[in-house]
Amino acid sequence: MPPRRMKFWGWGFEGEGATPEERTAVHKTAATKFGATTFDDTPPRAEDYTLRAPRVAVPQALAGFCSSERLDRLVHAYGKSFIDSVRIFERRVPNPPDVVAYPGGEQDVVDLLDWAASNDVAVIPFGGGSSVVGGVEPVVGDAFKGVVSVNLQRLDKVLEVDKASRAARIQAGVLGPQLEAQLRPHGVTLRHFPQSFEYSTLGGWIATRSGGHFATLYTHIDDFVEQVRMVTPRGVWESFRLPGSGAGPSPDRLAIGSEGALGVITEAWMRLQDRPRFRAGTSVGFRTFEDAWGAVRAISQAGLYPANVRLLDRVEAHTTGAGDGTADVMVLAFESADHDVGPWMARALECVRDHGGTPDMDQLEATGGHREGASGAWRNAFIRMPFFREILTPLGVLFDTFETAITWDRFGDFHANVMAALHDVMRRECGPGAIASCRFTHVYPDGPAPYFSFYGKGRPGGMVDQWQAIKHACSDVLNRLGGTITHHHAVGRDHMPWYEKQRPDLFAAALQGAKDAIDPSGVMNPGVLLPPKRQTASGAATAVR
Amino acid sequence: MPPRRMKFWGWGFEGEGATPEERTAVHKTAATKFGATTFDDTPPRAEDYTLRAPRVAVPQALAGFCSSERLDRLVHAYGKSFIDSVRIFERRVPNPPDVVAYPGGEQDVVDLLDWAASNDVAVIPFGGGSSVVGGVEPVVGDAFKGVVSVNLQRLDKVLEVDKASRAARIQAGVLGPQLEAQLRPHGVTLRHFPQSFEYSTLGGWIATRSGGHFATLYTHIDDFVEQVRMVTPRGVWESFRLPGSGAGPSPDRLAIGSEGALGVITEAWMRLQDRPRFRAGTSVGFRTFEDAWGAVRAISQAGLYPANVRLLDRVEAHTTGAGDGTADVMVLAFESADHDVGPWMARALECVRDHGGTPDMDQLEATGGHREGASGAWRNAFIRMPFFREILTPLGVLFDTFETAITWDRFGDFHANVMAALHDVMRRECGPGAIASCRFTHVYPDGPAPYFSFYGKGRPGGMVDQWQAIKHACSDVLNRLGGTITHHHAVGRDHMPWYEKQRPDLFAAALQGAKDAIDPSGVMNPGVLLPPKRQTASGAATAVR
Repeated sequence: MPPRRMKFWGWGFEGEGATPEERTAVHKTAATKFGATTFDDTPPRAEDYTLRAPRVAVPQALAGFCSSERLDRLVHAYGKSFIDSVRIFERRVPNPPDVVAYPGGEQDVVDLLDWAASNDVAVIPFGGGSSVVGGVEPVVGDAFKGVVSVNLQRLDKVLEVDKASRAARIQAGVLGPQLEAQLRPHGVTLRHFPQSFEYSTLGGWIATRSGGHFATLYTHIDDFVEQVRMVTPRGVWESFRLPGSGAGPSPDRLAIGSEGALGVITEAWMRLQDRPRFRAGTSVGFRTFEDAWGAVRAISQAGLYPANVRLLDRVEAHTTGAGDGTADVMVLAFESADHDVGPWMARALECVRDHGGTPDMDQLEATGGHREGASGAWRNAFIRMPFFREILTPLGVLFDTFETAITWDRFGDFHANVMAALHDVMRRECGPGAIASCRFTHVYPDGPAPYFSFYGKGRPGGMVDQWQAIKHACSDVLNRLGGTITHHHAVGRDHMPWYEKQRPDLFAAALQGAKDAIDPSGVMNPGVLLPPKRQTASGAATAVR
Repeated sequence: MPPRRMKFWGWGFEGEGATPEERTAVHKTAATKFGATTFDDTPPRAEDYTLRAPRVAVPQALAGFCSSERLDRLVHAYGKSFIDSVRIFERRVPNPPDVVAYPGGEQDVVDLLDWAASNDVAVIPFGGGSSVVGGVEPVVGDAFKGVVSVNLQRLDKVLEVDKASRAARIQAGVLGPQLEAQLRPHGVTLRHFPQSFEYSTLGGWIATRSGGHFATLYTHIDDFVEQVRMVTPRGVWESFRLPGSGAGPSPDRLAIGSEGALGVITEAWMRLQDRPRFRAGTSVGFRTFEDAWGAVRAISQAGLYPANVRLLDRVEAHTTGAGDGTADVMVLAFESADHDVGPWMARALECVRDHGGTPDMDQLEATGGHREGASGAWRNAFIRMPFFREILTPLGVLFDTFETAITWDRFGDFHANVMAALHDVMRRECGPGAIASCRFTHVYPDGPAPYFSFYGKGRPGGMVDQWQAIKHACSDVLNRLGGTITHHHAVGRDHMPWYEKQRPDLFAAALQGAKDAIDPSGVMNPGVLLPPKRQTASGAATAVR
């Protein structure tokens, strides 16, 4: 077990968190906006929690890499969502895992799954634990004798680098910074930077179809996977390592997004890129939101493939310090390892001006511009945001986000309806003063991925109920209007009701059939993607179809 | 049934074929290279064939759109591969479908599948019938009472065009030219041009993971699919229409490449593009093959995304008239609907010169260059090639191709080994004078998709055996060295032995589980992707696992 220990009650490792300055600023905002005043500065301590006794114990052969220590169980009891934070601060942990396993290699995973599958013990693969959708929460129904969380952190090596193809074979438990540090000496990068980059793993990215920081083209983990190796209860699944293939439905695309419900991803060959050397970036102000997204659409359909073409509505721009609230802001950037991106930026700025946008030319002239001005402010807020949760929650500020994707033809009405529903439910649940905003995290030629953020005043002891009301109202609207229930945060347990409405029923049947074939006892992350098997009246466990 | 009738014994529609000039040229080459002299000019006639009587008849309710006429059964008895051609010319059609259905709408497909699934009748979805891998051949094992081929040609409409998102809802049976003709008035294009474009359908492209003509980026049908609608024996599967999603494994990616083994794709929302207005193209000569593929690799990794960066080795260049056989030739082109592609081409030409390439600057200066010089010669040969099969086969010339994909680090050895194996088996099977060549059809940052062509002297009555020996030898090498058994021609029945070695065993189990759930009687295209269910000693049909 490594020296750095994950915080069980907040973002990152022990000792990390908001700076004093950030803390003061967040306090001030919370007080101004929501009248929040009380704040207990003391971080939760492990001894604050009453945990039920472990219900299962691993056999001797597995004991060397398993733990039922209080702190291990606490760290693996929740992900990092808003309601995870609320429940941690409320000292409520009803479902800790019984065992936490830290396999040292693939054979440990094989042995663990053998034991779990033969003993009705549920298995929850755990990468960085940064799930915000209940993906790693040990709530698995009543058909299991216990739960083991499998933390892959010891599988943290880049095993091979192939410079000619720009690819590497990488263990699934590696965190973003560890991964990039191992690639840097070779002059290559995975260039996949989700917001959780520092605290999430390659395996987690693949299992959840992670979306990177970049707005267009090569940013989704899906497109970087060249080969997957996954341990299932029936053995190891390994695809050929290929740049492209048309041999039947892609095996990798079934593993990608499987969220631990089919197996534990242990390693993958990943496509890399040369480290960018050329950059151009700026931000652009727009008088209306319609103009702004019209410009985004034009750029997305022009075949320019900017690294960033992120739209912040004026509220989002204001709350993140990227604007004064009088204009919608586009963050625009190009990057290349190969060539000057001037012609690309020049054409994008034409699109921008065609739609009434005003680019910040000073910022563009600065060194690349991507960490300057409004873009830099937004980028900093984006990275620091998750640390603010542990300040906001005990202050009684309700804060969460959700994201979706929709085609351009439907976007205008869709956005209006979602914002209306969000404002409406926030007013009902949180009273006046609630804040809601929208940005685009990713943009496709056929539509954007809008991301909604909201803040409101929480009710003491009622924040989980408030959140549920908001989540249900907004998810219902997304689903009814044809948006996806999740664009890059995964399904987990939180999104299951809407995921079940969204996916084709026959795909659900097919996926259940696939799972039954490779996880016949149904122990892999039960309740995620498919309903958990249930205890019958006779005491036998059956799969729910 | 439309006025144009498909040729059952060759490429295209009745009345189409090689021109007299092409015919003369092919004859001359065949005589020079292989001493081929005999040639019976008479096309095969339907009455030349003895077909077994239909083993099943559809009920009255389906009869209105079904046929058991000789010509319908002949047209659907084979695809368009070399051995299909040989068997047709040998007047051998042992496995015609018993019935050919021409559904007029989705409900017809639903009704047909209901009947087939309840009556142990195998169902083979049939788009343009251009499969070169046995994908539509009614060889389904012994567990079925009969076979119905489902020709989707009446589902040939673009149903909706969404200009804002650049997408359209399109019926699956539409042929390439029909599709583009319906999109043209809207100023958009699917821009998916496989070699079979004129004689293949949207549904076929999706079912087989078709690769378009373009060499990089958006060319695979996989990336154009926004939503799929598929009729399965258990009902209709329809995904949400989304620009992007992270909600579990992609349902669309299970339908894409399903080759009719899960259901009949009836329509899809497809991503479109604006029609290109800016073009730059040329061809580049290289002194060595290593220099040439080094340049291709550099361009593919530069983030320039040319529409074409196709490498023809000197033999391929010579046989297609794109070169004199003294140089390997790169066909290089950029296209855009939005902007001048000069800066892109300029940078690509730098990469080319870095690797010792000599671009044809005259061709570049000509109108766009993509239909001029070596590029134009190659393009013409590419499109006309399939018509030559019906001349070459009766001349006793063995001619076929196979394609794969491999990462760059392995490509040099891989290419040498595959070419050696191909030359070796060609020498054994066809004697001296055999020709073998290689080109790249698609290029990825992590590797190329090499495509091998071969010609040799056939043995009268022995060409199927010769082909099988060559196919086995080459496929064994591809598989052993880690190349995919198919990059864009699909698995069909011909590639099953190597596909079964290539895919993870547990993926096979998962796919069988998925199929069992939505096609419980196993009637959908039996023997493709999964082994067909078999008749047991007791007479009951069981699935083979």
